[in-house]
Amino acid sequence: MRAIANPLSLGTLILCLLGLAAPQVRALEPIQLTPPDLSHSKPLLQVLQERQSTKTYDTRSIPVDTLSNLLWAAFGINRPEAGKRTVATAVNCQDIDIYVVFAQGVYVYQAREHRLVPVLDRDVRSLAATQDYAQKAAIQLVYVSDYGKMNDSFGAKKPIYSAFHAGAISQNVYLYCASAGLGSVVRDSVDREALHKALKLRDNQTIVMGQTVGYAQAQAVTPEP
Amino acid sequence: MRAIANPLSLGTLILCLLGLAAPQVRALEPIQLTPPDLSHSKPLLQVLQERQSTKTYDTRSIPVDTLSNLLWAAFGINRPEAGKRTVATAVNCQDIDIYVVFAQGVYVYQAREHRLVPVLDRDVRSLAATQDYAQKAAIQLVYVSDYGKMNDSFGAKKPIYSAFHAGAISQNVYLYCASAGLGSVVRDSVDREALHKALKLRDNQTIVMGQTVGYAQAQAVTPEP
Repeated sequence: MRAIANPLSLGTLILCLLGLAAPQVRALEPIQLTPPDLSHSKPLLQVLQERQSTKTYDTRSIPVDTLSNLLWAAFGINRPEAGKRTVATAVNCQDIDIYVVFAQGVYVYQAREHRLVPVLDRDVRSLAATQDYAQKAAIQLVYVSDYGKMNDSFGAKKPIYSAFHAGAISQNVYLYCASAGLGSVVRDSVDREALHKALKLRDNQTIVMGQTVGYAQAQAVTPEP
Repeated sequence: MRAIANPLSLGTLILCLLGLAAPQVRALEPIQLTPPDLSHSKPLLQVLQERQSTKTYDTRSIPVDTLSNLLWAAFGINRPEAGKRTVATAVNCQDIDIYVVFAQGVYVYQAREHRLVPVLDRDVRSLAATQDYAQKAAIQLVYVSDYGKMNDSFGAKKPIYSAFHAGAISQNVYLYCASAGLGSVVRDSVDREALHKALKLRDNQTIVMGQTVGYAQAQAVTPEP
């Protein structure tokens, strides 16, 4: 994996050496995801039967091959020759970017390269999920619409389209989670203003919704007497 | 099946007998859908691989057991004890109603009873789908949000939530279609004003989006020389 172009600046380095700046989190590297393995999943109608929202999580992390399948299912490219994706978007605008928030930082999913590229090397889980129960989970997905990808004909309906697209993506995530034994919940509880600033999003990028993914907390079992 | 409470009025009957009114379409009856058969569907990741938008249809109708599964997958009840559904909605508001537009009229899907109840006994396919290619297909689904089911805390975000919910439902439809060998396409091409009036929707009901479902037109095969 290549290191990202985000080295410490000379000035910051000197401040660190002098103990005058907090030690920086080591720069994050891109994560090349394994190719999605489409050979193992539950039948569609079974995962629809099992789909539910989960509100208790433990802190187990998600294996990279599971994360790979999850992101491909969410909004990956299913027709490489045309660059088309698992969710239809109006005029194929593909406006939604999926930001993946881990404890160590934030990455954005690049579908064509099927990889995660770091965008922030600090912990903003409390912005991506303002509710305590959700912060425990392995990752928070944040759906960001790039209005710049929608042409003028969308007019005032850009927020409607972006919500419709993000809703479809979130359903893929719910269904993949049901197939893979993960829990998930869609949340509006995102500190949009602070997260928009932290991620250095542009004015024409909008945070649509958040979605938590992680392992559900095991039910406490009372020992037999 | 019980007849619906929509008999010809005495006045209309007299006008018909006198030949002064167009003959009315015979009143439609509710359609009790077969219980969904969840035992046969393709694996989730395979249908995600196969999901696409279809823009050429033939006029074959959809068997009732397939329609039953389609509507259950779309937004049916998957946890009967709690009345919860295949798609999550904010604060479980379940605001989306699915209207199903056939040549003979329009029905609304009642999830709890798993049946279709007629709401209009005339052909409004050209309102539900303003593009010719889509009108050929067996059915048009129309997603209607009932803002009356969202509490005041939703405020100005009602259109965002309803689009998000409808997007998730539309994805279930796409995926079920990929599993069942049907074609589908989400469309904004709905004559919302005329259809709202024809369906006698209330002011706080909003047509979010349309989705065509039907059999894809078979590819013409050139005979071997």
